[in-house]
Amino acid sequence: MTETIISSLTKEVRIGFEQPFVVIGERINPTGRKILANEMKHGDFSRVEADALAQVAAGAHMLDVNAGIPLADEPAILARAIKLVQSVTDVPLSIDSSIVAALEAGLAVYQGKALVNSVTGEDEQLERVLPLVAKHGAAVVAISNDETGISEDPNVRFEVARKIVERAADHGIASNDVVVDPLVMPIGAVGSAGKQVMHLLRRLREELQVNTTCGASNVSFGLPNRNGVNSAFLTMAIAAGMTSAISNPLHAEVMQAVHAADVIMGNDPNCANWISKYRESAPADAERGRRKRRRRPAG
Amino acid sequence: MTETIISSLTKEVRIGFEQPFVVIGERINPTGRKILANEMKHGDFSRVEADALAQVAAGAHMLDVNAGIPLADEPAILARAIKLVQSVTDVPLSIDSSIVAALEAGLAVYQGKALVNSVTGEDEQLERVLPLVAKHGAAVVAISNDETGISEDPNVRFEVARKIVERAADHGIASNDVVVDPLVMPIGAVGSAGKQVMHLLRRLREELQVNTTCGASNVSFGLPNRNGVNSAFLTMAIAAGMTSAISNPLHAEVMQAVHAADVIMGNDPNCANWISKYRESAPADAERGRRKRRRRPAG
Repeated sequence: MTETIISSLTKEVRIGFEQPFVVIGERINPTGRKILANEMKHGDFSRVEADALAQVAAGAHMLDVNAGIPLADEPAILARAIKLVQSVTDVPLSIDSSIVAALEAGLAVYQGKALVNSVTGEDEQLERVLPLVAKHGAAVVAISNDETGISEDPNVRFEVARKIVERAADHGIASNDVVVDPLVMPIGAVGSAGKQVMHLLRRLREELQVNTTCGASNVSFGLPNRNGVNSAFLTMAIAAGMTSAISNPLHAEVMQAVHAADVIMGNDPNCANWISKYRESAPADAERGRRKRRRRPAG
Repeated sequence: MTETIISSLTKEVRIGFEQPFVVIGERINPTGRKILANEMKHGDFSRVEADALAQVAAGAHMLDVNAGIPLADEPAILARAIKLVQSVTDVPLSIDSSIVAALEAGLAVYQGKALVNSVTGEDEQLERVLPLVAKHGAAVVAISNDETGISEDPNVRFEVARKIVERAADHGIASNDVVVDPLVMPIGAVGSAGKQVMHLLRRLREELQVNTTCGASNVSFGLPNRNGVNSAFLTMAIAAGMTSAISNPLHAEVMQAVHAADVIMGNDPNCANWISKYRESAPADAERGRRKRRRRPAG
C-alpha cells in the first residue's frame, strides 16, 4: 500500500490510497499577489504568518511555501518564510520553487521530512534536484512535463512520470517518496482536460502505484463560480485515485467536497470526521439550513 | 456509443456516455410524504402538478412518477398522475412502481417512449415486466438484486445485471434500452458502499456498455448535511461512468455539482451551460459571498 510520509518535528502526515485526502494549502505564494510579494521582498512576513494560521485553522493538512518574487533574493526569502511558518504551526511543509538554489536553502533550514515541490522530467533538472532530495531524505513532487513541454496526450505524460520515478530510484529515492502531478489544464481552454487527468490518475495509481497531487484551482481558470468547478473536479479526481492536492482550504465549499469524498471513498471511518464537522447542518437540506442561518441574526 | 432515448410526445432525452448527465426528478413519490399520499388517495393532484412544474423549472430532464400508497388503487392513481404530469410539462417520464398492474396502467396512458422503473433480476418479475416493456417499446430500469436479495459483493450484482440484460434481449429489448441501477447503500451503514458502486459502475460501462442510474439520495441516509454527501457522491459516480440519477433537482447544491461534473467530463461544450447558469456568481469565491451575507445582519 503506497504511503508518502511527510513530517515536521512533531507531526506526520500520510499521503496514501487508504488515507483521508491531503489538502496542501496554496496561499503562501506571492505569484499574482502583489501586496504579499512586496511585503515579503521588504522583510515583512506578517501576512505569511496570518495565511499559515488561517489555512491550518481551516483544515489544511500541509502548507505549500513559495517565495517566487522577481528580482528578489528568493533563496533567502524562502528560507526565512519556512523558518517562520515552522515556528507558528506544526503541519509539514511543501517547499515550492523552480530555482534549485531556493529549494536548497529551504531544505537547509527545514525541520522534519519535507515535500520538495518540484522536479520536472527535464534531464538537467533531474540531475540537480534529485541529489538534493536524496541528501535530505525528503519526498518530491514530480511534474509530468519535460524538454518537449506538456503533452496533450496523457499517455506521453504517463511516460514522463515513469521516467522520473525510475530516475529517482537511481538516486535511492523510493517510488513512495515521489508524488506525481499529472498537470491539470484549464477546462475552459481544453475541453478534454478533465477526462485526460482522470485517465492519467488511474494509470498512475494502478500501474506506477504512486501518490498524486495537482494544483487543483487551475482547472477552473477563466470560468465563473470557480469553487463549484474546483469542488466537483477534486471529488472526481479523488474517485479516479488522486491522494492530495495543492488547493485553497479557506473555501469552505472546497473543504466540504474533500471531506465528503473521504466519506464516499471509505476513508472516514464511521463517517466520524463528517459528522463532527457538519452535525450542525440541517439534516435533510443544507440549502435550507443556510437560509435559516442567514435569517437568524436578522430576526 | 450507448444511448437510451426516452421521449414525451414533443421532447426527447438522451441518456448516454457522451451526453450531459440526466437528472430524473424524484419528488412525485408519496413514500414518506404523508400529506401528498393522502391528497393523491383522495383525488387531489394539485401538489403533484406543483412538484412537476417546480422540478422542471429547477432543471430536471425527466420526472419519476410514483403512486405507491398503501390500501389505495395504485394503478388508477398512477395513470391519473401520469396523464396530469404530461398535460402540464413536456419532459419524458419514468413510470415507477413495484406493482406490475400499475406499470401496465401507466404505460397504457403514457404518450411517448417511457422509462419503466423497474424490473429486478427475479425470474417471476422478469417474465411479467419485460413483455410489457417490449409491447410498449419502452426502456427499463434494471435493479441488480434477485431472489437472494442484494449482494454486498459488487461482482454478484454485476452478474444479476448481466442476466437482466440477456433476458431483455430474449424479449427483443436492446441493451441500450436497459438502464442498470447498481443499488447504492447508505454509506453510514456500509462504509464500502461508495467504492463498491464506483467499481460496479465502471464494469457496467466498460463490460456491459449499458447506461446506469440510481436513487442517489440513499447514500447519505442518516448523515448530517446530506446534500454535501449527495453532491460529492453524484460527481464521483459520474466520474466512474454513471449517466443518470433519480435525485432532487430542487437542491441547488446538487444541481450545481451535476453541471460542474458535465464540465469536467467534457459534456458541456465550451462550458456554455455552466457559464450561462453561473455567470452571476462571484467569479473567485462563492463562499466568501455567503459569509459576507451572513455577517451583514449581525454587524
